[in-house]
Amino acid sequence: MSPLIDRRTLDFLMHEVLKVEGLCAAPRYAEHQRATFDAAIELAHRLAVEKLLPHNRKSDANEPQMVDGRVQLIPEIGEAVAAYNEAGFCAALADFDDGGMQLPFVVASACDLLFAGANPGTVAYPSLARAAANLLGAHGTPDQQRRYMAPIIQGRWYGTMCLSEPAAGSSLGDIRTAAVLMPDGRYKLQGAKMWISAGDHELGENIVHLVLARIAGAPAGVRGISLFLVPRWRVNEDGSIGERNDVRLAGLNHKLGQRGSVNTFLKFGEQDDCYGELVGAPNQGLACMFHMMNEERIAVGMGAIANGLVGYLYSLQYAKERRQGRHPDQKDPASTPVTLIEHADVRRMLLRQKCLVEGALSLGLYASKLVDEEHLAEGEAATEINLLLELLTPVVKAWSSTYCLVANDLAIQILGGYGYTREYPVEQCWRDNRINPIHEGTNGIQALDLLGRKVMMQQGAAFRILMARVAKTIAKADMHDDLKPMCAVLRTNFDRLAKLAQLLGARMAAGEVRPVLANAEQFMHAFGHNVIAWMWLMMAHRAEHGRVDGAATDATFYLSKIATAQAFFATELPTAEAAFEALEKGEDSAFRFEPDWF
Amino acid sequence: MSPLIDRRTLDFLMHEVLKVEGLCAAPRYAEHQRATFDAAIELAHRLAVEKLLPHNRKSDANEPQMVDGRVQLIPEIGEAVAAYNEAGFCAALADFDDGGMQLPFVVASACDLLFAGANPGTVAYPSLARAAANLLGAHGTPDQQRRYMAPIIQGRWYGTMCLSEPAAGSSLGDIRTAAVLMPDGRYKLQGAKMWISAGDHELGENIVHLVLARIAGAPAGVRGISLFLVPRWRVNEDGSIGERNDVRLAGLNHKLGQRGSVNTFLKFGEQDDCYGELVGAPNQGLACMFHMMNEERIAVGMGAIANGLVGYLYSLQYAKERRQGRHPDQKDPASTPVTLIEHADVRRMLLRQKCLVEGALSLGLYASKLVDEEHLAEGEAATEINLLLELLTPVVKAWSSTYCLVANDLAIQILGGYGYTREYPVEQCWRDNRINPIHEGTNGIQALDLLGRKVMMQQGAAFRILMARVAKTIAKADMHDDLKPMCAVLRTNFDRLAKLAQLLGARMAAGEVRPVLANAEQFMHAFGHNVIAWMWLMMAHRAEHGRVDGAATDATFYLSKIATAQAFFATELPTAEAAFEALEKGEDSAFRFEPDWF
Repeated sequence: MSPLIDRRTLDFLMHEVLKVEGLCAAPRYAEHQRATFDAAIELAHRLAVEKLLPHNRKSDANEPQMVDGRVQLIPEIGEAVAAYNEAGFCAALADFDDGGMQLPFVVASACDLLFAGANPGTVAYPSLARAAANLLGAHGTPDQQRRYMAPIIQGRWYGTMCLSEPAAGSSLGDIRTAAVLMPDGRYKLQGAKMWISAGDHELGENIVHLVLARIAGAPAGVRGISLFLVPRWRVNEDGSIGERNDVRLAGLNHKLGQRGSVNTFLKFGEQDDCYGELVGAPNQGLACMFHMMNEERIAVGMGAIANGLVGYLYSLQYAKERRQGRHPDQKDPASTPVTLIEHADVRRMLLRQKCLVEGALSLGLYASKLVDEEHLAEGEAATEINLLLELLTPVVKAWSSTYCLVANDLAIQILGGYGYTREYPVEQCWRDNRINPIHEGTNGIQALDLLGRKVMMQQGAAFRILMARVAKTIAKADMHDDLKPMCAVLRTNFDRLAKLAQLLGARMAAGEVRPVLANAEQFMHAFGHNVIAWMWLMMAHRAEHGRVDGAATDATFYLSKIATAQAFFATELPTAEAAFEALEKGEDSAFRFEPDWF
Repeated sequence: MSPLIDRRTLDFLMHEVLKVEGLCAAPRYAEHQRATFDAAIELAHRLAVEKLLPHNRKSDANEPQMVDGRVQLIPEIGEAVAAYNEAGFCAALADFDDGGMQLPFVVASACDLLFAGANPGTVAYPSLARAAANLLGAHGTPDQQRRYMAPIIQGRWYGTMCLSEPAAGSSLGDIRTAAVLMPDGRYKLQGAKMWISAGDHELGENIVHLVLARIAGAPAGVRGISLFLVPRWRVNEDGSIGERNDVRLAGLNHKLGQRGSVNTFLKFGEQDDCYGELVGAPNQGLACMFHMMNEERIAVGMGAIANGLVGYLYSLQYAKERRQGRHPDQKDPASTPVTLIEHADVRRMLLRQKCLVEGALSLGLYASKLVDEEHLAEGEAATEINLLLELLTPVVKAWSSTYCLVANDLAIQILGGYGYTREYPVEQCWRDNRINPIHEGTNGIQALDLLGRKVMMQQGAAFRILMARVAKTIAKADMHDDLKPMCAVLRTNFDRLAKLAQLLGARMAAGEVRPVLANAEQFMHAFGHNVIAWMWLMMAHRAEHGRVDGAATDATFYLSKIATAQAFFATELPTAEAAFEALEKGEDSAFRFEPDWF
C-alpha cells in the first residue's frame, strides 16, 4: 500500500465523483484525457515516494542552518527539487507554449497532495516558486514575465511571498516596508519581512521575492499597499544575472515542524541599495496578491489533508499489524492478543480519521475543480462559480487544517508510546501540519471572512448558489433508501444555516457586528461540518451508482464509502449541534468577558 | 506575574474551596497549619522558577545521549535535582521520623504542579524516585525499607517503574520477563523493559528498579505477575553499594517532548547475572503496583494541568501585550491597533483555556485531597472515600490530559507564527503534554476503566456517592439566584448520567459488553464534562461567599470565577450533548465498521 494515498479513493473522487475528464471538453485541456491526468498523478506519486519521502525525517532532524550569512540545506533537498523540476512539475500549470504541462488546477492539486504528504518541507521551495510564477503570469508585464517568470517555470529560479513583518502578521494593513520611485522607474525598498518561507537558499541561480510595500505618500491601510518584484540578484535586460541586490538574510526562525523549508527574517535595503519593480498598479498590491489567494488557501488545505492522510494510513497499517490486549469480555489470558484494529476504540479513532480526512479531501478537490471551471467559464456562469469558490475557500483552508490536525492527534494516540517517539512518523505529521491553521490567514480570520464577508456578500448570493447545489445532491440521493436519512438531516441543517445567515446578517446590519462575529468560529464549525456532510452525501450517492455499475471487486469499496458517510452523519455531524445552538442563542460569554477578569 | 500559576486561584482552591487546613485536625498533620502548607508551596515555587524553569528549553534542545553505554544529561538537570532534594521535596510525603516533610498529598500535589509546569523533564527523576519509595513504604519489608527506601528518601538514590515491554504496553498481562527463585531466597531475572523513564543516569549512587515479572510456573495473565526490586548496583547487608547488577541500558527512545527525562530500553539478565528481591507476595505484583496507581494517575493529570496552566498564562500575557489588527467594524487604518485580548476570538481561546485548565485543576486537587482523606479515615468512611476516588481517578487522568492538551493547542494559535517557533514556549508545552493521554494507561483504557469497572462496581456504589455529593453542592448553590440555572442543568445531567449508567449496566449484564464499551470514550466525555461542571459550580458557590466575606480588592476575582463557571456551562458543557445522545441511542458506527472496510 502507498504510504501517501489510497489510490482507489483518489480515483473515485477524481473520476467518479468529480469527473475531471469533463474538463478536456475545453480547448485549453483538449490535448488531455483521463490517461494523461492519471499519468501525471502516477509520476507525482513515484517522485514523491522515491525522491521526497526518503529524506522527510532527515530534513526534520537536520534543519537549515545559517552559516556565514548563507542558508545550508541537507543535499537531499536540492536533489529532490531538481528531480521535481526535471519531471516538469515546476511548470505543471504553465502553458504548453511556455514549456508547461498545462494541467488543470485540480490535477495539479492531486499531485501536490502527494508531494506534501511525502515531504512538506522540501516541496515548499518549488511550490512557492510556482505561486510566484503564477502571480507574475497574471499581473506581470510581458517584460517581467520574460525576465523573471520564465526562469522560474524552467526550474532555474525560485520565488517567495513577502507579506508579514515582525509587527504586522495577520494585520497586513499595518506593514511599513517603504518603496520610493527612482527617476529610472525602478523603486528603492526599505523594510523587514518576517516568516518568509524559502527566503534564502542556494537551490537555484536566483530568488524572485514578491514584496508588499508602501509607496511614499500612499494612503494608510490596505489601500496603500503595492506589490514589488525584488530579485535577490539583479537581472539585466537580456535576462542574465547582474549584481547582488541589497536583500539580507537577517535570521532564521526555528519551527515546530516543516523544518526542511527554511523560514527567514529578511531585511531589504539596509545599505539603501535594494531595487525592485512594481507589479501591477500602485496601491493595488493586495488585490494582486489576493488574486492568487483562493488558490493558495486551497493549497494550504490540501497540505493539511496530505498530512492527515499520511497519519491516517500509517496508523491504519499499524493497527492492522500490532497485536495488543484482548476484548473486554475475553477472559482467557492465554489466548492470542488481537490486532489493535479489533479494539472498538481503536476503530473509532481510525474511522474518525477516515471521516475527517476523506471528507476534507473531497472538498479540497471539489474546490480545486471550481478553480478550473472559473477559469474556463464566462459571463454569469463564471460569476456563479467564483462566488461559490469564494464561499468555500475559507472552509477548505480552516476546516481541513483544524480537523486533519485532529486526525493526526488520533494517529499518535493509536500508536501509543511508539507514536510519541521520533522513530515513528506520526508525531512529525502533527508537527508539520500544525502550521496550517496559522498561515495564509489564521483559522480565526478565515471564520471572520466566512461569516462576515462570504456568507453575506451580494445579499447572500454565494450562499444561495451553495444551497441550490446541495439541494440538487439531496434530490438525487433521496432516491436511495439508505441515503434518505442523511438527506433529511442535511436538508434540515441547511435550512437552519440559511435562517442563521439571515438572523446574523440582520443583527450585523443593525450594528451588532462585534457580538455576531465573536461567534464566527462557531459558525465555521456548523457550516463546515455541513459542507463536509454534503460531500459525504455526494460520495455516498456516487457509491450507490458504483455498486450497480462498478466492478464486483469494488463492492466492499463502495459499501465502505456509504458506511463512512453514515458514520460521519452519526458521529461527527452531531458535534455541530452545540455550535448551532450557540449561534441561535447569541452566546456571548467570551464577548462579555472583560480582559481584567482573566 | 508567575509564569507557572495564578497564585490567587491556587489559594482560592486550596483554602476557600477545599479548606485543606482541615487536614491538620488529624494527628498526622497536627504539626502543620495553613502557614506551613503555604510555605511549602512558596518554596516549591521559588525552586521551580529559579532551578527548574531556566533549563527547560535547553534540556529540550539537548536531549540525553547514550555515550559508551552511559546516559549523559546536561549538567543543569543534576543541579536542579540536587536543589530539589536539598529542599526536602524528595521526602515531601515521608514521615518526620524518616526525615520527611510529612505533607498531605494534596499539598505535595500543588508543589508538583509547579515543578511540572516549570520543567516536566527534569522533575521526572525525583518524582519517579518518590513513587518507588512510596511503594516500598507500603509493600517492602523493614529490611527493604532500610536498605532501599531510606537512601531514596534521603535524595541519594533514584527509582523507576519497569512495567512495559516492547510487545506488552497497554496489555500488562502479556509481559514475559521471567524470575527464578535461587536457593538463597533471591530471584534471578531475565527480560526486556521498554519506555522506562529515568531508567539509567548518573544523578545518584544507585537506581532501584521496581520490575514486574513472572515467577517460573506462575499462572498466565495478570494473576501471575510479581513485583521485584532490582537495584542497578547490588546492595550489601549494611546498605553499602556492592557489585554492578546485570541491568543493561540497551537504547534510548527519542521522544516528541519531555526530552529532558531520559526514556530507556533496559535489558535484565543478559549475562544471566541479574538478581532481585521479591516485593510483597508472589503473583501479587500488579496489586502492589496498582496500590499506587490512583496517586500516579492523579500525578499524570496534575502534570497535564501544569502544562495547560503554563500555556494559558503565557498566551494570556502575550495577548495582553501584543497589538495586532482592529475590530471588524473599526475602519480607520490610521487608528492604533488593539491588543490581541481585545479581539473576541482571542478572548474565546483564552476563556476556553481558563475553563478547561482551572476546571481540571480543581478536580485534580479535589481528588488529591481525597487521597489524604482516605488515608486518615477508617471503616465505612474510608470505604466511601476510596470508592469516590476510584471513580474520579480515571477522569482526573484522562479528562485533564485530553483537555489541557486542547488548551495548549489554543495557546499556540493565539501566538500565531510565533507560537509555531521554538523561540516561544507554547509549542513545547504541547509537546511535553502530549505524553499524558498515553502513559499510565491510555485515555482509551481510562474510559474503559470508568464505564466498564468504576461506574458499575458494587452495583453503582461509587456513582451514588458522587451523586450525593453533587446534590449537596447543588442544594447549597441553588440559594444564589445567579447560580440557579447552572444547578438546574447539573441536576438534569446527573439524572441523565444515572439513567445511562443503569441502561448501559443492564446491556452489559445481558452480554452486550463489547458494543457498550465501544462507546466508553463518549461516556468519559459526558461524565467528565459534568464532573468538571460540578467543580465549577462548587467554585462559583464559594465565590459567592467570597463576594460577601472576602476582601473588596478580591471583588473582580470572585466575579471572574462565577463568570468562568457560567462560560463553562454555556460553551463547553453543551459539547457533551452529542456524547449523551450517542450513548442513549447506542451509536455503533465504529463498532460495526469492519476492519476490511478501511
